[in-house]
Amino acid sequence: MTDEATVFVPGHLTSFFSAHPETNPSAAGSRGAGVTLSHGVDVRVGLGGHGGADPSVVTLNGEPVAIDAVAGVCNALDASDATVTVETPLPLGAGFGVSGAVALGTAYGINTVYDRRRSRNDLVSIAHCAEVEAGTGLGDVVAQARGGLPIRLDPGDPDHGRLDGIPAAPRVEYVTFGSVSTEAVLSGDTTRLTAAGERALVDLRDAPTPSRVVELSRRFAREADLLTDRVADVVDSVRDVGGDAAMAMLGDTAFAFGTDLSDAGYDPEVCAVHPGGATLRVAEYGESTPLNVE
Amino acid sequence: MTDEATVFVPGHLTSFFSAHPETNPSAAGSRGAGVTLSHGVDVRVGLGGHGGADPSVVTLNGEPVAIDAVAGVCNALDASDATVTVETPLPLGAGFGVSGAVALGTAYGINTVYDRRRSRNDLVSIAHCAEVEAGTGLGDVVAQARGGLPIRLDPGDPDHGRLDGIPAAPRVEYVTFGSVSTEAVLSGDTTRLTAAGERALVDLRDAPTPSRVVELSRRFAREADLLTDRVADVVDSVRDVGGDAAMAMLGDTAFAFGTDLSDAGYDPEVCAVHPGGATLRVAEYGESTPLNVE
Repeated sequence: MTDEATVFVPGHLTSFFSAHPETNPSAAGSRGAGVTLSHGVDVRVGLGGHGGADPSVVTLNGEPVAIDAVAGVCNALDASDATVTVETPLPLGAGFGVSGAVALGTAYGINTVYDRRRSRNDLVSIAHCAEVEAGTGLGDVVAQARGGLPIRLDPGDPDHGRLDGIPAAPRVEYVTFGSVSTEAVLSGDTTRLTAAGERALVDLRDAPTPSRVVELSRRFAREADLLTDRVADVVDSVRDVGGDAAMAMLGDTAFAFGTDLSDAGYDPEVCAVHPGGATLRVAEYGESTPLNVE
Repeated sequence: MTDEATVFVPGHLTSFFSAHPETNPSAAGSRGAGVTLSHGVDVRVGLGGHGGADPSVVTLNGEPVAIDAVAGVCNALDASDATVTVETPLPLGAGFGVSGAVALGTAYGINTVYDRRRSRNDLVSIAHCAEVEAGTGLGDVVAQARGGLPIRLDPGDPDHGRLDGIPAAPRVEYVTFGSVSTEAVLSGDTTRLTAAGERALVDLRDAPTPSRVVELSRRFAREADLLTDRVADVVDSVRDVGGDAAMAMLGDTAFAFGTDLSDAGYDPEVCAVHPGGATLRVAEYGESTPLNVE
């Protein structure tokens, strides 16, 4: 038992997806593929006891923000007085799965600080359901719990969905211009998007490689009519010099592997694929910070 | 495509298990729990082409050793001429899952070097089946692919078995005195062992915490009649000073969390729980070696 725990959760760039709504949030979710990042969120959870806090309000890089999924997690784990403090280099709403990461980190943190003795799958399920019910994401949480380059074969939490992955660890580059509303896209007609996502998943499983991820993501954004003008410009510039790039779902963000953005003259953020998923940071293990890979 | 790839695979201390043989090696395996370690194996796979090599012979810390599971992996991926070079601080046959780690690392390495375009689950399945067929392990490979403190809910490869985990990251201490033959135990009558392992799994799922892992592992070794004299002495010494320790399955090895072995006067090896599973090392990402956590 401890008064405070810090959890690192990788960011997650969704490259393509199909939406699978269900009444039961455990079974709802998305299929698709994405990239978990060594850039992520550090979620510090503190034992509350002060009463009266609004559990949806967390502090993100020093500023209070409302993340509905966090309230769902706090309620599910009977810890509505927990304090949640987040530090991250990633922007909210730009396709990095920050809300899912904070929800998952909060679940892991509460489990430790409040000694809830829940299993990993229980915590992933709680965060997944909170995110689905908030309408802010469908597949980030299960991907962020796993790490790597996850392929979501089925929608839903660990009791419903199966994951596969791409056994590779390319360097990742990204540039971001701002937000796209996940809620607005997911609450609209997703028929076309889902058909495009299903096609991309079949083609990725046929040859699960990083270059195929970018190629299929690029095709998906066009077929699903989600490509923003600014990302379209980046993709064109990168392809003009022999590289490839695509859009993160859902944000005004372009990503590529290797040095494809740099080679086209951009000044991207650079990180690695995160080899694991959400993990508690272990202060006692000293300076090697074994649970993060920045 | 590249001529060489290096893969890090964590060691895996099995804490307790039940054996579930099946004719189909994909479905065979074990249920139970264990600890993946930041101490593991680095497997370097090189493109062959010299012909005539015996794929079961790998170089381990400079010495040739025969690991049957490696031959199975090379054959399954049609790369019998691959060269496999292993560096590890862990002893073979002492309960750290080294054979499974080398098999899994070889699968990931061949996939990269020979451009085999298999998915993560395919590679895990290939290594799992090779290990089961060699009779050298039942559950290490799937645990080592996942990382953390894995709970194996079902036996078998990723298409058959489900995993859960303990959401914690304690410091790990261990002392090792030598080998116990996994083949000899698994080829004998495993009825008593399996009954003890099933009881431990039920009790762990009721409260999945690190301290419960050690407590149930200690009980399992006694009930399954596997406890060696030297590990029994360590466990008694540690409990005399208020700590807890248990035996790694299957090796003459004692392990504990936190500082429980040190506190009892031992000079243990110390490492962390590995946050992810098997991962390709990425030289291009430079000095941060994001894919290992030693």
